[in-house]
Amino acid sequence: MAGKVVTAIGTPNIALVKYWGRRSGAVANLPTNSSLSITLDETLHTKTSVVASRDLARDTLYINRELQDLEKTTDEKVAFTKKLLDELRAVARTDEKVSIVSENAFPTGAGLASSASGAATLGFILPRALGLDLDTQQLSTIARKISGSACRSMFGGFVVWERGTKPDGSDSFARSLVGPDYWPEIVDVITLVSSGRKRVSSSEGHTRTPQTSSLYAVRPAIAEERVGALIDAIQRRDFPKLAEITMKDSNSLHATMLDTYPPIMHLTDVSRAIIDAINELNAREGELIAAYTFDAGPNAQIITLERHRQKVIDTARSIVGKDNVLVAKQGAGPRLLGESESLIDEGKLIHKYLAQL
Amino acid sequence: MAGKVVTAIGTPNIALVKYWGRRSGAVANLPTNSSLSITLDETLHTKTSVVASRDLARDTLYINRELQDLEKTTDEKVAFTKKLLDELRAVARTDEKVSIVSENAFPTGAGLASSASGAATLGFILPRALGLDLDTQQLSTIARKISGSACRSMFGGFVVWERGTKPDGSDSFARSLVGPDYWPEIVDVITLVSSGRKRVSSSEGHTRTPQTSSLYAVRPAIAEERVGALIDAIQRRDFPKLAEITMKDSNSLHATMLDTYPPIMHLTDVSRAIIDAINELNAREGELIAAYTFDAGPNAQIITLERHRQKVIDTARSIVGKDNVLVAKQGAGPRLLGESESLIDEGKLIHKYLAQL
Repeated sequence: MAGKVVTAIGTPNIALVKYWGRRSGAVANLPTNSSLSITLDETLHTKTSVVASRDLARDTLYINRELQDLEKTTDEKVAFTKKLLDELRAVARTDEKVSIVSENAFPTGAGLASSASGAATLGFILPRALGLDLDTQQLSTIARKISGSACRSMFGGFVVWERGTKPDGSDSFARSLVGPDYWPEIVDVITLVSSGRKRVSSSEGHTRTPQTSSLYAVRPAIAEERVGALIDAIQRRDFPKLAEITMKDSNSLHATMLDTYPPIMHLTDVSRAIIDAINELNAREGELIAAYTFDAGPNAQIITLERHRQKVIDTARSIVGKDNVLVAKQGAGPRLLGESESLIDEGKLIHKYLAQL
Repeated sequence: MAGKVVTAIGTPNIALVKYWGRRSGAVANLPTNSSLSITLDETLHTKTSVVASRDLARDTLYINRELQDLEKTTDEKVAFTKKLLDELRAVARTDEKVSIVSENAFPTGAGLASSASGAATLGFILPRALGLDLDTQQLSTIARKISGSACRSMFGGFVVWERGTKPDGSDSFARSLVGPDYWPEIVDVITLVSSGRKRVSSSEGHTRTPQTSSLYAVRPAIAEERVGALIDAIQRRDFPKLAEITMKDSNSLHATMLDTYPPIMHLTDVSRAIIDAINELNAREGELIAAYTFDAGPNAQIITLERHRQKVIDTARSIVGKDNVLVAKQGAGPRLLGESESLIDEGKLIHKYLAQL
């Protein structure tokens, strides 16, 4: 059968200034404010294989061995994937169908968002499978269309997603601020505390918070200012300033979620215990040596420096237990993998897992 | 010995639009926004006896059998009481010392703020002990000087505390909106879930939130608008609208607390379970029949109507247990008690508890 399978690996990122809230009336995933993140290494990652071929009868998408319904999905990201696929086919002037297989290497049920990692990896590899040769900025725009914050995972190190102002979103993509070697002492200590599904999807929250939180009115301007101040702190390698902005912006994100009607509440008693413990650790040290940050879930990611790594790990373990702490450093963004890593059977053009059944 | 003991009883109030945040640079307890509350009946209450006499060597204040140091206290409310006492003595042109004995009838360790109840009762009775005959508005101003929200407990039923604009606070006092008989169907279901002391005193929070929460910038205007909308809902006895405003304002208060740096976090997993349960109850009923609200603590007060009382009690009990739910209705404000209720020994002019030792 025709068609060449291509495979890539990509990773999540952790935002220090958060994306939360879509511009009203905008096409998908255009943010109200810029955001700034660290792309993580392959401690947590997604592998995705894609093949495009006229021999395929229809498009198929497997995520973690589960077939997604590209035509009638209720999952917004799957719907966005289908739309993007059609757009890319139009650009590539092809009518080939595709087979996509994606696997996340994330602890199961730990409540860690794998969607940015998954969307970045797909955004990186899908155009290539269709024969398109795009630059990283274009790939970032593509990943953003599947899952907003995924656009930041297209680059390594510290990454800024400029909100942009154009209604069509053509100026809303990420750019590299500094690569992973600029400040290699940065460490991310990740706690794994949650299980089960989120009660409110982030897709829904991105719309509902701007619509119903009255405090949210000032958040975009606050976040925009923080991105500027954080870029300045990174340029000076000023960790205490980075830590202060990171904690304040996490608090601000969860405050506007709580002010949403009905409220979106992700922080649990365990989350609060971690916040208290990090504040106490910083107080004991007499300076900010660690910063907690929470995405749309109860898991803390604690940013620190290499020389404080063990103290932060010990603090985290004292709350969530020895086996529920991971450590990641900065990563370099998605990359191609060799044929041996493919998740698709080259002969049958289907998921290797299915080909083996 | 000379001096007549006077005794009063007063009660807490539950704010539907909250007071949180002092005007910067203002004299004590001048709020950034107006607030609106329900004064509760004597299910929870404070009793306070006061005697003024030249036979007393010094001022003494007992709260719950504990002697407070009026001269060198670290408790802001005790310091404010001392200051107020001196002010009132100047107005009354007397140099009599006073003995004050105050007892709260609140479940111990249940985390229910008794300060408004205590300050309102003291504000009501202290001027009388000094021979001053003041009107309720003046008494409300006096209570406000001890503990801001106490000024609202000086009236029964639904009460508005107008923020005022004068730097000296002379226009910042409560007024009765409607008495307890206007909407007698209103019921307050109180959960008792916490124990232990608050980590951050409300006094500190009232200063720290306006100073450090960037989202707080818009809260005063939002709260002011809600007070207007809530007055309108009360005039129309529109319970669903009252419920919506109440829940939104509680969310907003706790959002600005969370956005404080470092964050102030009062809502626990139990609080969140109550919020979810009330949202689910309202969804099942197809209309808003109950509204949760949280002061600076994890205990929900759930406002409902008499005809839904049992459903709300059952919902609350399903989360906090059968014995941890109280029910209060509207009260009429503080009142004088007879001599038999006195907490002070008429002969020795000291705490009866001490006189009996």
